[in-house]
Amino acid sequence: MDLRIDLNADLGESFGPWQMGQDDELMTSITSANIACGFHAGDPSVMRRTLALAQRHGVAIGAHPGFPDLVGFGRRELQATPQEVEDLVMYQVAALAGMARAEGARLQHVKAHGALYNMAARDRALAAAIARATAAIDPTLILFGLPNSELLRAGQAAGLTTAAEVFADRVYEPDGALMSRRKPGSVIHDADAVVRRAVAMVRDRSVVASDGSRIPIAADTLCLHGDTPDAPRLAKLIRDGLEEAGIRVQALTTNL
Amino acid sequence: MDLRIDLNADLGESFGPWQMGQDDELMTSITSANIACGFHAGDPSVMRRTLALAQRHGVAIGAHPGFPDLVGFGRRELQATPQEVEDLVMYQVAALAGMARAEGARLQHVKAHGALYNMAARDRALAAAIARATAAIDPTLILFGLPNSELLRAGQAAGLTTAAEVFADRVYEPDGALMSRRKPGSVIHDADAVVRRAVAMVRDRSVVASDGSRIPIAADTLCLHGDTPDAPRLAKLIRDGLEEAGIRVQALTTNL
Amino acid sequence: MDLRIDLNADLGESFGPWQMGQDDELMTSITSANIACGFHAGDPSVMRRTLALAQRHGVAIGAHPGFPDLVGFGRRELQATPQEVEDLVMYQVAALAGMARAEGARLQHVKAHGALYNMAARDRALAAAIARATAAIDPTLILFGLPNSELLRAGQAAGLTTAAEVFADRVYEPDGALMSRRKPGSVIHDADAVVRRAVAMVRDRSVVASDGSRIPIAADTLCLHGDTPDAPRLAKLIRDGLEEAGIRVQALTTNL
Amino acid sequence: MDLRIDLNADLGESFGPWQMGQDDELMTSITSANIACGFHAGDPSVMRRTLALAQRHGVAIGAHPGFPDLVGFGRRELQATPQEVEDLVMYQVAALAGMARAEGARLQHVKAHGALYNMAARDRALAAAIARATAAIDPTLILFGLPNSELLRAGQAAGLTTAAEVFADRVYEPDGALMSRRKPGSVIHDADAVVRRAVAMVRDRSVVASDGSRIPIAADTLCLHGDTPDAPRLAKLIRDGLEEAGIRVQALTTNL
Repeated sequence: MDLRIDLNADLGESFGPWQMGQDDELMTSITSANIACGFHAGDPSVMRRTLALAQRHGVAIGAHPGFPDLVGFGRRELQATPQEVEDLVMYQVAALAGMARAEGARLQHVKAHGALYNMAARDRALAAAIARATAAIDPTLILFGLPNSELLRAGQAAGLTTAAEVFADRVYEPDGALMSRRKPGSVIHDADAVVRRAVAMVRDRSVVASDGSRIPIAADTLCLHGDTPDAPRLAKLIRDGLEEAGIRVQALTTNL
Repeated sequence: MDLRIDLNADLGESFGPWQMGQDDELMTSITSANIACGFHAGDPSVMRRTLALAQRHGVAIGAHPGFPDLVGFGRRELQATPQEVEDLVMYQVAALAGMARAEGARLQHVKAHGALYNMAARDRALAAAIARATAAIDPTLILFGLPNSELLRAGQAAGLTTAAEVFADRVYEPDGALMSRRKPGSVIHDADAVVRRAVAMVRDRSVVASDGSRIPIAADTLCLHGDTPDAPRLAKLIRDGLEEAGIRVQALTTNL
Repeated sequence: MDLRIDLNADLGESFGPWQMGQDDELMTSITSANIACGFHAGDPSVMRRTLALAQRHGVAIGAHPGFPDLVGFGRRELQATPQEVEDLVMYQVAALAGMARAEGARLQHVKAHGALYNMAARDRALAAAIARATAAIDPTLILFGLPNSELLRAGQAAGLTTAAEVFADRVYEPDGALMSRRKPGSVIHDADAVVRRAVAMVRDRSVVASDGSRIPIAADTLCLHGDTPDAPRLAKLIRDGLEEAGIRVQALTTNL
Repeated sequence: MDLRIDLNADLGESFGPWQMGQDDELMTSITSANIACGFHAGDPSVMRRTLALAQRHGVAIGAHPGFPDLVGFGRRELQATPQEVEDLVMYQVAALAGMARAEGARLQHVKAHGALYNMAARDRALAAAIARATAAIDPTLILFGLPNSELLRAGQAAGLTTAAEVFADRVYEPDGALMSRRKPGSVIHDADAVVRRAVAMVRDRSVVASDGSRIPIAADTLCLHGDTPDAPRLAKLIRDGLEEAGIRVQALTTNL
């Protein structure tokens, strides 16, 4: 039996003079990079530098489009219409795809950012808008989303390959949803626990939910966070733990 | 002898709730549309609508990248570095090119906007940056610029096809430069004079300069303005005048 | 018995090169101007010109703060925190208040714009944030809001004078809420009907709701729209109709 | 003989999710804080937090208005008109002044940021625009500028108190201008040398220029940089060095 997982992280989140993240350090642990496209973070120069960095590390490249909300970092829900979402996703994915092609690279995937990702998990019309935009730019792009989300269903309906994304440091509700960050205990901080959880999710395709029950979960790609000082070390621990458990860590597409 | 000219205009300059221009009316007179890419004007939804409008009219599509200066409409000089200019042009052209491809269209050309266009006419490093960005996105794109400008030279050096752009309603200095708009008499408002001038520029490849001397001028594409109430009527007069003079009015590429 | 009403309109909604509204024409009909503060519309130069225009016409001046969403014109709900709303309202009101004082004027009121106004009508925490920001900048400012809204209650709790705002061209639900614009028949287009309705609202302090019942309504200020070609004419009809009915049309404060 | 100097630094340069600077650490060394106003850095929430921080430390507060260029951090020259500059300075200073007043504080000064500061040092019309805007918002504000600059002259002509600003870590040309950062050796990195230089500038009101000559220099306020990891330590060294030399370190106004 062939166990494998993609490890993704959000990168290229600097903007103008402002630095964010530890992109260099994370690149050695991840296999897929979600690159911000200028609306919630990133600017054209940051995007090019991040593209080049991912290429040097042989990391697969994805677009990470978000709401046009720099000051809120795309984390605030914005009641944009499905048409507006389709257009702004198309614009952002096209910009990064074209810049990648200019550097001799190809996009592997699209992962919506922040509030856009979360809204599209449950809102069918937004999910369809993101899927349409992605397929229109390139029908071979892989669409990331939460397992069992409207976004994954919309991607499949649009003929896209999809990838179910899991979070090893987050607690799941019995119905498979992520427990809200606002609830105490929703985020797991113990590194060993996170590593064990990552391995279990991939190996068993299940996870122990908040009520102690074991629930099934699809895991094509696992999200590593980059926004804590400790992030690169934790990323390396997770990767090492997965590989020690006999799980192959590799991008979803290996022929980019 | 085969006389022909492309007629271009800046379109898609609305933004969010704000309307600008008379794109529908101009589409019937022009052969090439320069579509704003979201930095000085335009937004993703405006860009898509303008792309669709140009396609319906069989008008060739070009990217019109500008400085990131909405409030100044990209008309104010900004001391961006050549690297910044390369990156922001690449981003904007890639965004429009990808959106066009998603709609089944291809870009014909790139025309820098406003201050970026004017700075690149005389600044070799900026000109090279624009040419590099354009060639990197698509080496078949045609780069617009003032006759005898650094921008055209940079485009040629980058292996791009270039198109010399003329303005029938502007007075030229004896050295071939446009007389500054700030000088009285620099803009010609009489419609008949503008039409005669357009015909003469194409037919004779020369123009009478501010001192009365006749100077040579290359004219591959002629810019029609869209920002006056009278613009569509003047555009039609110019097109009719050119055709009546036996000049073929057509896009630079006819196989898009 | 002394019947009177303030007539307000949203002004200064141009931005950079983009014109919006018919501010000059409206100024002769209104008594209070809500001036956009640069986040959803307006820029520093537009704000100054609009301030000067209002002063020339003797029209009272108010700040019209909105969400930071130019492309969406502040009409899209944004899940900002109460703290963020307090800060962005404080910033915008302070900017306009300072510019007004520099021109020898004083602000009369604050009217939140678009989605911010509507969200604060029903969300107590956002309403309190707006009231706190307004009171902190100047406790003599009058806070506008829908009758019976959380926003008016928050204003009163913060010690502010409040003004209940009505719309003569909108249908009201039996519970006093505005019927959603998305429902057919929710906007009244017949000018005579709108004028009669305006007069009735002020004179009778009641309005006939969507189910035919008559409901009480407080009306301190009546909103005139400026976003249709016909707006100035309709504004004048309403003002004339009110005055002919013996209603005094005047700003809420007459000693600015 | 009473020797004294104000120590200023640019603060509040975070934006949305992006942190910049070490404001907490610098506050213990400086006497005046130049707070970014949202155009090149800062946002309403950052501004309020920075205002509160300055108040807690008893540090005088100034507005630090810049060009509307977040991605370029206001460091790129922008050919805005004097009218545009007047308006955008007025807007930014008014916003911070109003927010400060809401917190029970008063602005002490205005220091233009980056390219705006440098352009106004030599461009009389821009300098006058900044001075007009400052005086219009509050004629008691102190205007910062390079010694012998157009900006200081414009401030004096507008009736403002002005403060000549010096940089202890920058080399001066024989004519009193700052040597361009692009020239090698233009920035002094040795901490002891910077401290000695600071003391000498205040005590002797002169400085040794690039050619070895000693030139007179006015020094009302000395700029401490906050953008290096070492900045707080260097700031403390400079302050200690000044005080040990018998120079009083205090804000320009002590009755705020």
